Amino acid sequence: MPLTPEQLAEIEALRATPRPTLRAVSEGMEAHLYRAHQVLDHGFIRVIDYMGDDAAIVQAARVSYGAGTKHVSNDEGLIRYLMRHWHSSPFEMCEIKLHVKLPVFVARQWIRHRTANVNEYSARYSILDREFYIPAPDQLAAQSRVNNQGRGAVLDGPEAARVLDILKRDAAQSYDSYESMLSQDGQQGLARELARMNLPANIYTQWYWKTDLHNLFHFLRLRADAHAQYEIRVYADAISACVKDWVPLAHAAFEDYRMGGTTLSAKAIETLKRRLAGESVTQEASGMNKGEWREFVALWGEA
Amino acid sequence: MPLTPEQLAEIEALRATPRPTLRAVSEGMEAHLYRAHQVLDHGFIRVIDYMGDDAAIVQAARVSYGAGTKHVSNDEGLIRYLMRHWHSSPFEMCEIKLHVKLPVFVARQWIRHRTANVNEYSARYSILDREFYIPAPDQLAAQSRVNNQGRGAVLDGPEAARVLDILKRDAAQSYDSYESMLSQDGQQGLARELARMNLPANIYTQWYWKTDLHNLFHFLRLRADAHAQYEIRVYADAISACVKDWVPLAHAAFEDYRMGGTTLSAKAIETLKRRLAGESVTQEASGMNKGEWREFVALWGEA
Amino acid sequence: MPLTPEQLAEIEALRATPRPTLRAVSEGMEAHLYRAHQVLDHGFIRVIDYMGDDAAIVQAARVSYGAGTKHVSNDEGLIRYLMRHWHSSPFEMCEIKLHVKLPVFVARQWIRHRTANVNEYSARYSILDREFYIPAPDQLAAQSRVNNQGRGAVLDGPEAARVLDILKRDAAQSYDSYESMLSQDGQQGLARELARMNLPANIYTQWYWKTDLHNLFHFLRLRADAHAQYEIRVYADAISACVKDWVPLAHAAFEDYRMGGTTLSAKAIETLKRRLAGESVTQEASGMNKGEWREFVALWGEA
Amino acid sequence: MPLTPEQLAEIEALRATPRPTLRAVSEGMEAHLYRAHQVLDHGFIRVIDYMGDDAAIVQAARVSYGAGTKHVSNDEGLIRYLMRHWHSSPFEMCEIKLHVKLPVFVARQWIRHRTANVNEYSARYSILDREFYIPAPDQLAAQSRVNNQGRGAVLDGPEAARVLDILKRDAAQSYDSYESMLSQDGQQGLARELARMNLPANIYTQWYWKTDLHNLFHFLRLRADAHAQYEIRVYADAISACVKDWVPLAHAAFEDYRMGGTTLSAKAIETLKRRLAGESVTQEASGMNKGEWREFVALWGEA
Repeated sequence: MPLTPEQLAEIEALRATPRPTLRAVSEGMEAHLYRAHQVLDHGFIRVIDYMGDDAAIVQAARVSYGAGTKHVSNDEGLIRYLMRHWHSSPFEMCEIKLHVKLPVFVARQWIRHRTANVNEYSARYSILDREFYIPAPDQLAAQSRVNNQGRGAVLDGPEAARVLDILKRDAAQSYDSYESMLSQDGQQGLARELARMNLPANIYTQWYWKTDLHNLFHFLRLRADAHAQYEIRVYADAISACVKDWVPLAHAAFEDYRMGGTTLSAKAIETLKRRLAGESVTQEASGMNKGEWREFVALWGEA
Repeated sequence: MPLTPEQLAEIEALRATPRPTLRAVSEGMEAHLYRAHQVLDHGFIRVIDYMGDDAAIVQAARVSYGAGTKHVSNDEGLIRYLMRHWHSSPFEMCEIKLHVKLPVFVARQWIRHRTANVNEYSARYSILDREFYIPAPDQLAAQSRVNNQGRGAVLDGPEAARVLDILKRDAAQSYDSYESMLSQDGQQGLARELARMNLPANIYTQWYWKTDLHNLFHFLRLRADAHAQYEIRVYADAISACVKDWVPLAHAAFEDYRMGGTTLSAKAIETLKRRLAGESVTQEASGMNKGEWREFVALWGEA
Repeated sequence: MPLTPEQLAEIEALRATPRPTLRAVSEGMEAHLYRAHQVLDHGFIRVIDYMGDDAAIVQAARVSYGAGTKHVSNDEGLIRYLMRHWHSSPFEMCEIKLHVKLPVFVARQWIRHRTANVNEYSARYSILDREFYIPAPDQLAAQSRVNNQGRGAVLDGPEAARVLDILKRDAAQSYDSYESMLSQDGQQGLARELARMNLPANIYTQWYWKTDLHNLFHFLRLRADAHAQYEIRVYADAISACVKDWVPLAHAAFEDYRMGGTTLSAKAIETLKRRLAGESVTQEASGMNKGEWREFVALWGEA
Repeated sequence: MPLTPEQLAEIEALRATPRPTLRAVSEGMEAHLYRAHQVLDHGFIRVIDYMGDDAAIVQAARVSYGAGTKHVSNDEGLIRYLMRHWHSSPFEMCEIKLHVKLPVFVARQWIRHRTANVNEYSARYSILDREFYIPAPDQLAAQSRVNNQGRGAVLDGPEAARVLDILKRDAAQSYDSYESMLSQDGQQGLARELARMNLPANIYTQWYWKTDLHNLFHFLRLRADAHAQYEIRVYADAISACVKDWVPLAHAAFEDYRMGGTTLSAKAIETLKRRLAGESVTQEASGMNKGEWREFVALWGEA
């Protein structure tokens, strides 16, 4: 469980006293504020703050004066139009701030998204807790045989057990070493900025992460995708669930156009048009290479 | 006057019904929300939304769990420390969204600040209003004789009158032409995306502009500076006044360290140290070139 | 003609003396260096510098040690894979620096692309030349009747003539006024930073603009698109022609996947699958709204 | 030693055949191209490509047509002026691409600089080498007693020996575990994307890192600073030495204004002025808090 009773009490205290504001308010998001959504064994995401709602997107698109259009059906159509035609700036008018607790190897992928603001817990300044990500048995997967950067079947029981033993043992030993190097009991005690180098990538860290809705959608498209590593995908899924309650119209458009959609090359368009006209098109005739054809067929079927 | 009675009524309507929120609330900023602060003859800035407050900066700096430290004196010290040591990320945790009406030549300077989100009124899509910036008499200044990109003395009366006549006449004529080219009365009517090219740079445009506090401070440092062009400086001043009510501790640190502070080169440090030791240092002995010396003496005096 | 004989001589001088380098060299791009490609009546683009080539993209993708793979066929496949799967960072390893002369209203659209470095000619510091964009007759188009931000049919002769007269007359007058306000002949002379406000948006400015290949492709996708305004599209086309000579493999993948490709929503995929299975699908049955259906049918035809 | 004989041979091959270019060439930088500058025990930096030189900065500042000014003394003055007045865009016109091999905990600090392009070796796709950073004895320092995020005295011999034993033992064990979990010898073999989580933060990774000169200077200012952690400072120092050979004028201005310079608050300016006038100012009278005063006195002395 990622939260202590003290932390839960603190969250409830933060939620106890609403204050009046004249800003745009998203009821759906207010319900999430400060609360921890558990992810993995010790991680979580928490919405700490947000700015804007669906109407703010519409308002920015219209640079209208005031509340923008009044009819939800129009707002929905405009938001879908903006998403379809890659108009990014209106979505940038919404902002979200999250508190995330996550394993370091997930943080290393996550931080590649540069258009965001980050404050991470500093292991130069403070001592990290003894918390490590240990995969659940159904996530202990073998290296994929077809995909160089993916996982295949779940490991057999005995092999899985060996792996879990190793991960737990090495985590415990590295943390014992960390503590013993830091200790000032009968010795000087190694600097924290050095001792941390002994800790493995499955130790948990935490940060505040703030980004705008356009860049968040970009993050979700890549990280909630089926090809993303499971351990970051579950964070993306948890965030996506909050976004759905925050900006339901924008989220629905995102799901339809980005998560559920696809991109076609000129060659793929041509091939589909020929198929629609009743023609049977082979890989050779399509002009696609093997990789493209494999992906094309995966979606559209053979012939 | 930039606002119509309808617009004023709309603003009051937006301010009429506070709603409860669990987010951080800045009382000082709530008082500004939606209201127009007039700038120049037809321009304004309006705060449309904000995220965070002084406590959010502290909280991010500590990645503390919950409300952060309780004592304002500590918060102030920490915020000053962050500002002094160029720690930018905690200030990025606050965000502001403005609605700005401004002349195009001011907009062209403003947009050079890239780390911001912008939605501008589109003159491809819509027709611009007949509103032009005409300087007040005390701002009709001559070209500076010493500074290639600055202004000098206020123009003499007759010359000022000639300039005002020209600006008004040309603005009126260009707008008449704009309307006559657009007109579909007895003719096809030129495309809006083409007709706009006839409009001069003192016509007003408007946009939503959103940025984080760190980047806003950077904007204010450059644009509220005495060397900035007057017409953008007045916008920076109006924004700065709102920021002071929003995040008073951060704003005070910004004023002390950035607006009121200065940067010294190694040579300037050395020269000051010699002066403090009672030595008289000439330009030659300082190692500074003429321009550096002129700026150094302007702040620290001769000898 | 945008260039003076002196400028042409200067370009040839810059091209006269190649120097040895150990960096990656693109023969195709060397042929473009410094030369002006005319755009519109007085504008141009010139490639001033570049970094990287197709091999640099491949090398970054592999973080290989050294020259990367040796066989072009593999490089092509990898580059197409990267483009197809939206892997942007390897394309960011190439950089281009352009010198561009362009009307101000085009510059205002262009600058919206924020991930770029810009140095623009300063009208605070210097005096702009008397050069205005006057559209060619075949570009004097009426406002579109179906698209709020587009142009329709070319204007009739007499109306076109009137528009041209207006544009030329107003440009001349605004520039005459500019000069007369600046003049220090018998008067103080208005500051340049003020006088410029009288100049219309079809006056030419110039800048150095530097960006990476990923962001350049994004720019080209939006600005070389059929829906972009003609006056920026011709700049995008001129740049695209240079990029084709610089990184032919990346450019070909870009053309196939981005310029010639399309994006399908989940609903559009479903509709196409039903059509491929022989079903006739109406707008209602597709779940698309009117706008989406219109765009869908424009590409895929009516059932 | 970070490089194998094969790698050294490959570097010499890359350096063997200069090719003609019409671009700006920096002789100083050509001497560095591809060569590895060793950093820490197994790391290095290598300059892989660059764009621009001192003249390119000047040229962009002037948006001059062609080679810019001819006299180096003028260029130097202009570059110093740009640096002094925080004009960042001309420095952005130069670009550098580095190949860096570095420990993961250094990479985690480094990546916080967001305005850069990065391609990192992927441990999802490939297997990391058995190379760990083990500090040299003179870098095995105790936690600082005065600075929460710094190091103090070097550890005593026996404690240092214990720490080295621990770091080596844990690194070896974690890597043995990594290999044994990955092994497909008699078992399925854990996915690489999972196995990597067992590796500690002192394992080496590598990446291509590309940035512009303005952002590089910002990086160097923070990371070559005396307060930066030693293990990233040595990388910054190695890069700075290359930059000095690349753009000597800009580098000298950077050293004088940024690395050797300081920032004064309004209160510090006031205090120095009073001291210069012969007055003795106490902390209380200065208006500075304790931390500010401590830093002020460290530079300017008591009295």
